[in-house]
Amino acid sequence: MQKKHILTCCLSFFFLTFLTEQATHAQAKKGERPNIIVFLVDDMGWQDTSVPFWKQVTELNKKYHTPNMERLAREGMKFTNAYAMPVCTPTRVSLITGVNAAHHRVTHWTSPNQNTNTDYPDTTLQSVDWNINGFSPVPNIPHTFYGTSLPAVLSQHGYYTVHSGKAHFGSAGTPGSDPIQVGFHVNIAGNEIGHPASYLGQTNFDRVANGKSNRNAVQGLEAYHGKDVFLTDVITTEALKALKKPISEKKPFFLHLSHYAIHIPLDADKRFMDRYLKAGLDSTEAKYASLIEGMDKSLGDVLQFLDDQKLADNTVIIFMSDNGGLSTTPARGGEAWTHNLPLKAGKGSVYEGGIREPMLVRWPGMVKPKSVAEQYVIVEDFYPTILDIAGIKKPKLIQKLDGISFLPQLKNASLTNAERQLVWHHPNRWIPAEGPNIHFASAFRKGDWKLIYDYRKGKLELYNLKTDIGEHFDVAASNPKLVKQLAQSFTKQLKTWNAQLPVFKKTGKQVAWPDEVVGQ
Amino acid sequence: MQKKHILTCCLSFFFLTFLTEQATHAQAKKGERPNIIVFLVDDMGWQDTSVPFWKQVTELNKKYHTPNMERLAREGMKFTNAYAMPVCTPTRVSLITGVNAAHHRVTHWTSPNQNTNTDYPDTTLQSVDWNINGFSPVPNIPHTFYGTSLPAVLSQHGYYTVHSGKAHFGSAGTPGSDPIQVGFHVNIAGNEIGHPASYLGQTNFDRVANGKSNRNAVQGLEAYHGKDVFLTDVITTEALKALKKPISEKKPFFLHLSHYAIHIPLDADKRFMDRYLKAGLDSTEAKYASLIEGMDKSLGDVLQFLDDQKLADNTVIIFMSDNGGLSTTPARGGEAWTHNLPLKAGKGSVYEGGIREPMLVRWPGMVKPKSVAEQYVIVEDFYPTILDIAGIKKPKLIQKLDGISFLPQLKNASLTNAERQLVWHHPNRWIPAEGPNIHFASAFRKGDWKLIYDYRKGKLELYNLKTDIGEHFDVAASNPKLVKQLAQSFTKQLKTWNAQLPVFKKTGKQVAWPDEVVGQ
Repeated sequence: MQKKHILTCCLSFFFLTFLTEQATHAQAKKGERPNIIVFLVDDMGWQDTSVPFWKQVTELNKKYHTPNMERLAREGMKFTNAYAMPVCTPTRVSLITGVNAAHHRVTHWTSPNQNTNTDYPDTTLQSVDWNINGFSPVPNIPHTFYGTSLPAVLSQHGYYTVHSGKAHFGSAGTPGSDPIQVGFHVNIAGNEIGHPASYLGQTNFDRVANGKSNRNAVQGLEAYHGKDVFLTDVITTEALKALKKPISEKKPFFLHLSHYAIHIPLDADKRFMDRYLKAGLDSTEAKYASLIEGMDKSLGDVLQFLDDQKLADNTVIIFMSDNGGLSTTPARGGEAWTHNLPLKAGKGSVYEGGIREPMLVRWPGMVKPKSVAEQYVIVEDFYPTILDIAGIKKPKLIQKLDGISFLPQLKNASLTNAERQLVWHHPNRWIPAEGPNIHFASAFRKGDWKLIYDYRKGKLELYNLKTDIGEHFDVAASNPKLVKQLAQSFTKQLKTWNAQLPVFKKTGKQVAWPDEVVGQ
Repeated sequence: MQKKHILTCCLSFFFLTFLTEQATHAQAKKGERPNIIVFLVDDMGWQDTSVPFWKQVTELNKKYHTPNMERLAREGMKFTNAYAMPVCTPTRVSLITGVNAAHHRVTHWTSPNQNTNTDYPDTTLQSVDWNINGFSPVPNIPHTFYGTSLPAVLSQHGYYTVHSGKAHFGSAGTPGSDPIQVGFHVNIAGNEIGHPASYLGQTNFDRVANGKSNRNAVQGLEAYHGKDVFLTDVITTEALKALKKPISEKKPFFLHLSHYAIHIPLDADKRFMDRYLKAGLDSTEAKYASLIEGMDKSLGDVLQFLDDQKLADNTVIIFMSDNGGLSTTPARGGEAWTHNLPLKAGKGSVYEGGIREPMLVRWPGMVKPKSVAEQYVIVEDFYPTILDIAGIKKPKLIQKLDGISFLPQLKNASLTNAERQLVWHHPNRWIPAEGPNIHFASAFRKGDWKLIYDYRKGKLELYNLKTDIGEHFDVAASNPKLVKQLAQSFTKQLKTWNAQLPVFKKTGKQVAWPDEVVGQ
């Protein structure tokens, strides 16, 4: 008994020492507010990385090489149930407002051109009057959601805020198209466009046709025109350059490093092509994988920069993508809707392949290395979380936040809340082709259960994500009570947000609310 | 140290006692050769059971109720990588001959009618001259494989052998159509037919149309005609009745309890329908599930019989299915090729869904309860294994066995051999519709690797079953050396067996051997 007691004491002492050291480590930086980097990738799928986000290493994981994401996972926390919206602008607006898409009404991707509805015409449903011009930092701009942006709050509270890369917060001619007006101190190459005309400096990031410049030529990088440089690299270099000022002034910074990669056009990042061609990938998929590795190289450059500047310990990095991996063929190689397996479907869909994202967070001293959080989180949670990280309490905001801070999970990965309710609302038609719930569909998650509502069919599907991550087995018919409960909660939430529902062209009647189709 | 030593001694003593008891238990039956039951189900898929054969409980597992299979898994060993052929007769012939289908040349299902090729005509390929009349226990029967059947060997060595249910070893008018001529002492309801006209006693197990009896009316059960009984139950009752004789005479028995269930027609087993209709299954899938539960009830009756007769301890039961679950729609409900998920495809295909089977073995005192064997085994292994179990050494056989005994695995579930090579050979066209490698395809497994050869495309696919059980990611292009090695081994094996390859109709040329298409 004596020995056992001594051992317990030793262990207690060890843990106390360990905890004290941890606390000291964090406290060393007390007073210094942490720098915050949101590293956002465009169109990157849940499996587009060598970091396994599922319970096993998949063939897709083996296809890609992302050593710097692996490093981030090793040094930080992996979120295996992180979500965005099925297309990009809704996600980006949720990120900078903390508001759900059903609520901010930017439910679809905004055209670079003002007052242009990007919904593809549908024969059955009339699309909703959504905020087709995106986010606005200024009131009374037609068809926009007006709010206090995350960079604006951070700027107001002493952060030096830098945007680099794709913005796509609002359409041209509205204040939301300009990251400076949105609230950033610095804007590098961001405006109303949702993807680049080209990734190549040699073509001035443009794709001239018939002597005319492309609408999506990337602006603001004239210094690189004609040079043999790749867009992913350029916006990284420029972003890190812009950080010199707050670093020298000892001000905390917020960097929104928002890659155009890996959105189409699939220009080969020739620095990385060889590996994939040698591995037998077709040229399309090799280009895609090269874009991924180029993006990962950017992450490596950021990590190296932080090391060199001795800032790694006081900088939080959040890695995220804005929607599921594109899985139509073309533009992808191989077989359609297989690019996010085991998840179903891809970009555009409310099935998991369209919304589940690779998310990583590193925060030395606060976030445990190699930790894994299974609690589901969603992109509007970034706003309140980042306010928490920055220590900004009760800021004055125009909008009411829908997101919930995941700071508790960052401190303790095992915290879960199966009562949390998530909503994806996409009352829009994405593309001409049909595909797995890529048009006019919404979804609702609570615990392991996911309800999917196809507005054109007027049908609810129910999946158990724990046993059926591939959403192959609709168990709605065998769980009528549960479907009813979930449909009621789903409807209540949609109504609370005054969500918009499409209308049948034939009858002029609005589609039913989820709880109205139960038992039909 | 003293205490630790005592503890070690106690443990050693405990284990010695335990092992001695185990040995005594087995030895108590020494001299008595074990009874052997092969419980064979028709068309049952890998997931058509509440016993999880994958690493997780799936929605399909949750759909079915097979409490007696659960009991068998609890009391015995589960084989998670057990294989049969993609269609039934090849499997049945392999089972009773120990020979691979590429070798016995019954590569497709035999017609009940003699000299009838069941290959559906194909525009590209001419089917091979396979053994369309099936197995024969007598030489010089045209288009048959002649060999010494498993029941014949067992009968010669003192076993009382009973067949009950579907036989389908050979076509009508050949000796192979008759289980008695094949080598069984007793035949209950087995002949040349591959599925029943009906499961219902009330219709005399027939399906009369235009006043004419159906070709597949089940024969030999006249005592049950007009009665409210279900075929699955009847062949169980009759099988157990037939065992009374060897039991009273204290002779070991071999029972081939070979269910017609769950092959189409999907007649509802009304004893079990309620549960599935209440659970919201469509009527087709409810009928399918009721057939499964009826089959499981049969297993329960067998287990109860063994308990009642105090024979459980000296009886080996091997549970198996003859090919993957049918997954065309119709006849199945729901979406085609989803009925064996996570496996790809279903009956007819050389993808896993067509060949991987739910296999269980109980042998008290020899097989550890709740054990799981991951070594891949194939149906031709049953023959040498059963000879081992029966203690029959070096019997005189007409054919050379291709199977390998899995008795070592029964004694030690952890034994594995990644060098083992398995072959599936199906140079035939199954049905009018196209589907995932359900026509003219062969496959080869070694370790975790599986090579698939589509004869019409002249293309090899490579899958890693460990990371990609769903066979979604063809990694042939990225593993050219491995493909070459496997194709060489595959070709060598096919040539050793003098396997038949189809011929292009246009050119009259035989398709290439697997090693000839490498690098093309």
